[in-house]
Amino acid sequence: MQNFEFYNSVRIIFGPGEMNRLGELAAGYGKKALLVKSEGPLEKLGVYKRAADLLESAGMTVVALEGVTANPKLESVYEGIRLCKKNDIDIVIAVGGGSAIDCAKAVAMGAEDDGDVWDFFTHDRTPEKALPIGVVSTLAATGAEMSVHCVISNVKTGHKYATHYEFHLPKFSIIDAELHTSVPKRLTACGMVDAITHTGENYFAGDKSTLLTDRIAEGVILTVMECEGLLEDLGNIELRNNHAWAATIAINGITDLGRGAFEYGAHIIEHALSGKFDVIHGEGLSVVHPAWLAYRCEKDPDKFVKFAKRIFGMEQGSMSDVEFGKAGIEALKARYKSWGMPLTLGEIGVDESCFDEIAEIVVNDPDSFIDDKKVVLDVLNSCK
Amino acid sequence: MQNFEFYNSVRIIFGPGEMNRLGELAAGYGKKALLVKSEGPLEKLGVYKRAADLLESAGMTVVALEGVTANPKLESVYEGIRLCKKNDIDIVIAVGGGSAIDCAKAVAMGAEDDGDVWDFFTHDRTPEKALPIGVVSTLAATGAEMSVHCVISNVKTGHKYATHYEFHLPKFSIIDAELHTSVPKRLTACGMVDAITHTGENYFAGDKSTLLTDRIAEGVILTVMECEGLLEDLGNIELRNNHAWAATIAINGITDLGRGAFEYGAHIIEHALSGKFDVIHGEGLSVVHPAWLAYRCEKDPDKFVKFAKRIFGMEQGSMSDVEFGKAGIEALKARYKSWGMPLTLGEIGVDESCFDEIAEIVVNDPDSFIDDKKVVLDVLNSCK
Repeated sequence: MQNFEFYNSVRIIFGPGEMNRLGELAAGYGKKALLVKSEGPLEKLGVYKRAADLLESAGMTVVALEGVTANPKLESVYEGIRLCKKNDIDIVIAVGGGSAIDCAKAVAMGAEDDGDVWDFFTHDRTPEKALPIGVVSTLAATGAEMSVHCVISNVKTGHKYATHYEFHLPKFSIIDAELHTSVPKRLTACGMVDAITHTGENYFAGDKSTLLTDRIAEGVILTVMECEGLLEDLGNIELRNNHAWAATIAINGITDLGRGAFEYGAHIIEHALSGKFDVIHGEGLSVVHPAWLAYRCEKDPDKFVKFAKRIFGMEQGSMSDVEFGKAGIEALKARYKSWGMPLTLGEIGVDESCFDEIAEIVVNDPDSFIDDKKVVLDVLNSCK
Repeated sequence: MQNFEFYNSVRIIFGPGEMNRLGELAAGYGKKALLVKSEGPLEKLGVYKRAADLLESAGMTVVALEGVTANPKLESVYEGIRLCKKNDIDIVIAVGGGSAIDCAKAVAMGAEDDGDVWDFFTHDRTPEKALPIGVVSTLAATGAEMSVHCVISNVKTGHKYATHYEFHLPKFSIIDAELHTSVPKRLTACGMVDAITHTGENYFAGDKSTLLTDRIAEGVILTVMECEGLLEDLGNIELRNNHAWAATIAINGITDLGRGAFEYGAHIIEHALSGKFDVIHGEGLSVVHPAWLAYRCEKDPDKFVKFAKRIFGMEQGSMSDVEFGKAGIEALKARYKSWGMPLTLGEIGVDESCFDEIAEIVVNDPDSFIDDKKVVLDVLNSCK
């Protein structure tokens, strides 16, 4: 195992009905809340009215940031920062999925700074602090409710960049699966792929002596697969609960500890794709992650052997490690396909003509560990 | 899954050599440290001198609380509180195993109160705050370095009682396996049993739909068993690392989430035994936990079937659930025996004549969920 530091101070409030605690929890941080609202069905479902009522009942004044989109845009972040400064906001409350939460994280960081918040994403400046954040998570997918990560898209430059700070950890996150039951099948499957990808990104990299970290990562993947019945039974609260907790643990840090490597190849390529094409994150990952894994398996198949055995209960027989590892990856792809998820770039509207540009974006991402365009091109060509 | 709240804000600094960060970390909390030192070999090994040097090099004044024993005693806690008040201590630093850490937790709580700290253990009063705590963990066992629990023995009354508060969470815990390599075989095995017991205490209780929580708990138990080579290779730093992280995760809360039950039957009985007889905690658990499990298995064998399959890879064949569950428990006992651990009360010097008194102590423990002496007597008689 490699040395590590782990700190995750998010207070998780988990279970059906727990949204009712929003007011009480938020009021501990002040009197004025910015409510970050995402586009989509939550307004119609009355979730935003309920959130505002809960906050107001706890004596808070609520200002709303409307219309945050999937792959949240820098423009929304700027508007949120403006609202925070104008209204002297004490806490930023995200109610939604990863888009609302990431937008809230970026707003909270920019509200405590006088310059351009995008500087933090390009690594031109380092932020010092942020307003507190509170979350009601309405979608099991990105794990943003318990992660240090924040990803924002800059439409002007076509870049989707990330920051990673301890102050991005929400003070509290309410995970109330009652709010998840209205998520349609396609987005539910995207959330399942997202959770598996978060866990799988680092499982195969770095130090291989991390016995417990591997068991926990495998536990997340196995749990998500055990929840697949959800896709035919969207209102099943037990499966929603289990999927939600797996998606949260997948990227709260605990599935990475001791590996000493952070090789999120699928994410860095997918960010380039969705910064450019606005593809749905889970669909992009469903295509790119297995392709990335196949590329990694050829270089270093050991952990892929373990993966095939422990996740799919496969037997190696006379296969070489690389063959067997790739058979495990094929089993994962078959599972994704059975969930209705795409496996090729063509299916998500990305054609070959942009590959070179995508590769250029990846190697220039300030957060990237890939400095050779050929790596990206190989991966893209293998899933076109 | 049952609704839950989870919060664990301990900053974990993990890995060989990390003890060197003690001064820097502690100095963030003030100028004056109480260094809680346990009896045993750490003084001779120079660990306490090193700790004091690190703190002083960071500009801190160090006051020492000497001679904390296994099953830490209320008298040490009183002395620590006196030292804190007299010296206006800012942070309590435990360097040691669970005994030093639990003593530090109780001292930190008592130092911010004017009454008798034992009142908090008898539930006569509720504490409001505590001094910050920092930890250098020198033994993989109790998980006190990342838990909300604190257990203290009152020699006068013969009681060993626990408190559970968020402020018992250390601000930071350094887990440096280099310091673990001098732990002898017997205590190493005790630590392995302690970690398995912490995880196993709740695995079998409450809601059975906690898919990921179960996987993580199983991961802890499997990891500890994978580390058994340690007993013949005490200096193996990789196995020390893995054992240490498993022992920490075993009781940081994450292996219990969503079950909605907290049935720590083996611990509550072992606390009564070691409050009375000062037995080594891990040895007491090695005897009592399997006996407690057998009692539970007869009432509700479902999870024991899962345990036998997933932990020991056993096949049920024509066995009933109770028979198969008990076969899993026997496999656990065989493993403990192979580690040189005791399986009967006779082996740890506890004889039948005290059973009634132990049962009385258990049902009167303010922290106990057992109100029927017969339950305790049945368990004790099954392992006498």
